[in-house]
Amino acid sequence: MKLTILGCHSATPRTNTNPTSQVLEIKNHMFLIDCGEGTQVELRRHKIKFSRIKHIFVSHLHGDHYFGLVGLISTFRLLTRETELHIYAPKGLKEVITLQMKLSDSWTNYPLIFHELDSKKSELIFEDDKVEVHTVPLDHRVYTNGFLFKEKPDERKLDMKAVLKANINMAYFRKLKQGADVVNDDGELIKNETVTLDPRPTKSYAYCSDTKYSEEIIPIIKKADVLYHESTFLNKNEDLCEVTKHSTAKQAATIAKKASVKTLVLGHYSTRYNGYGLFKKEAQEVFENVLLAKDGVSFEF
Amino acid sequence: MKLTILGCHSATPRTNTNPTSQVLEIKNHMFLIDCGEGTQVELRRHKIKFSRIKHIFVSHLHGDHYFGLVGLISTFRLLTRETELHIYAPKGLKEVITLQMKLSDSWTNYPLIFHELDSKKSELIFEDDKVEVHTVPLDHRVYTNGFLFKEKPDERKLDMKAVLKANINMAYFRKLKQGADVVNDDGELIKNETVTLDPRPTKSYAYCSDTKYSEEIIPIIKKADVLYHESTFLNKNEDLCEVTKHSTAKQAATIAKKASVKTLVLGHYSTRYNGYGLFKKEAQEVFENVLLAKDGVSFEF
Repeated sequence: MKLTILGCHSATPRTNTNPTSQVLEIKNHMFLIDCGEGTQVELRRHKIKFSRIKHIFVSHLHGDHYFGLVGLISTFRLLTRETELHIYAPKGLKEVITLQMKLSDSWTNYPLIFHELDSKKSELIFEDDKVEVHTVPLDHRVYTNGFLFKEKPDERKLDMKAVLKANINMAYFRKLKQGADVVNDDGELIKNETVTLDPRPTKSYAYCSDTKYSEEIIPIIKKADVLYHESTFLNKNEDLCEVTKHSTAKQAATIAKKASVKTLVLGHYSTRYNGYGLFKKEAQEVFENVLLAKDGVSFEF
Repeated sequence: MKLTILGCHSATPRTNTNPTSQVLEIKNHMFLIDCGEGTQVELRRHKIKFSRIKHIFVSHLHGDHYFGLVGLISTFRLLTRETELHIYAPKGLKEVITLQMKLSDSWTNYPLIFHELDSKKSELIFEDDKVEVHTVPLDHRVYTNGFLFKEKPDERKLDMKAVLKANINMAYFRKLKQGADVVNDDGELIKNETVTLDPRPTKSYAYCSDTKYSEEIIPIIKKADVLYHESTFLNKNEDLCEVTKHSTAKQAATIAKKASVKTLVLGHYSTRYNGYGLFKKEAQEVFENVLLAKDGVSFEF
C-alpha cells in the first residue's frame, strides 16, 4: 500500500504549498482522493499515469478539495481517454461539472460516472474482488465524508507439505485456497486449517479530512493500519476548531489512540504556520506513531 | 503599459507550461485577462498584489481560459478582501461561480459583480477617466471576445513660455489643458494650439485569443500599439485551424499587418511543439515586429 501526498495544506494554493490531493495505490488500484487546484500538474510531476486513475473520491465541496477536478476531467478528454472514470462525491458536484462541460461544449468521449453521496451513515461505495471502500461520515461545515479503503483477504496459502501428506487430490486445491474443508483420496475429511496457512494480513487506510473532533468515526476506522486525520491547527489555536469545524494535531492523535490505529498521518495544515514540527510534537503527547504529510512525499505501508 | 504573461499555452496545464492568463498594467489599472488553472499561484510567484486586481476579463468559457477563476475568487474571500471585483465574461460564468459558492456555502464578503457578455458586436464594457475597454468579437468554437484596452489622452501640456507671453490669467490654465481657447488679460482670444502642446501619445493593447483567422476584427483593433494574437499552430498544421477555430502564427501576422499594429505578440501555442522559434520565423515572413509570449515574461510598451 503506497500513499503519495500531492498536497496537504488547507485553503489557498501557494507557490510552495498545494491544496489537498493524494493518491493511494492499493491492490493494483490507483485511487485519487480529493483534487484541489493544481492536482493534474502534481500528478504529472510525480509521473503518475493518468490512465491508471479510474476512481476519484471527493470528501466535500470546499474548493481546496475539488477545484482541480474539472480541469483533470477536461485533460482526460483532450488526451482521448476511453476508459470509464468513476467519481464518488457529495451531491451537487455532477451539476457543477455538467454545467461547465455544457458551457464549453466539451463533453467527455469516455464514460464519466458520478456516484453522488448524501447519506449520513457509513456506506459501502466501491467493491471488487480485492478492495472495498466505505464512507466515513465527518462533521464539517458542509456535508463531508472521509473514506476507508480496505484490502480484502488474499486466498489462503497451501501448506504443500501438509497437503501432500494428507493425500489430497489437486482438483481440490482451489477449494482449499478458498477456505473449505475437503475429502481426500482415502475418503477422510481434511480440516482446512490443518493444510493451509493464513494469507498475509490485509491492510486498510482511513482518510478523514476535513472534520472537527468526532468520536463517532471511531467504530468505522477501528484498527485501521493507517489513519490520515486532518490537523489544521496547533493547540494554541484550538479555539478556532469549533467555528471552523477543524481539528488540532492533538485531537487527531486522540482519535488515532481511541481507534487503535497503527499509524497516524497528519495533514491539512493551516497556512498560518511555518514548519510543522510542533504538529508532530503535540500529537505525540497522546499517540506515538505519527507521520507528517508533506507535499510530494510517498509513504509505503 | 506593462504586460506580464502568466501563461500562454493552450489546452492542459503542465509542469512547465501554464494555460492562458496575463496581467495588463495600464494607467494605474491592473487588469487580469483570462484565468486558467494555476493563475493565483502565478500571481503570487510574480508578486502581483491581489488587492490591485479589480477587473477580470474572460475571453471564453473553455477551461484553459477560466478554470483558475473560482479559486481566485475564493482566495480573495479567504484573504478578507473588501473591495469590489468586476468580472467581464460570457453569459454562463455567473451561474457556474454562484453554484460553486452555494455548494461550499462560501459567499464572498466583497461585492462580486458580473458583467455578462452576449453581444456579437464590439461594445464598450469599461470606461473611466483614463482608460476604456471594448470587446473584440472573435470567431471560435464557443462564444468568445477579445478585448481592446485604450488609454484616454492625457490633458494638453501648457507651453509655459507661450502662455506667459500671451498674458493669460492662471485661472484659465485648467481650460487650456482641456483644449479650450481662452481670452487673455488684454481681451484677446488666444487659440489653444498656440499655447499648448500635444500630450504624450495614448497607447492601446488588443488581446485576441482564441480565434480563427478573421478579418472582421481589423477595423476594431486598427493601429493598436500591441496586438496579442493567438497562434496555436505552425504552417504545417494549418489544416487543423478550420475545425478547431484557431490560427497559425502566419495568420496572426497577416492580421497584424492588415490592422497596421506596431507590435505583434504571439501566444497560445499548442503543446505539441517543443520550442517556439518557428512561430516567430513564420510570422516574420509577413510582419516584422514580432515578440514571442513566454510564461513569466513581462513586456513594457
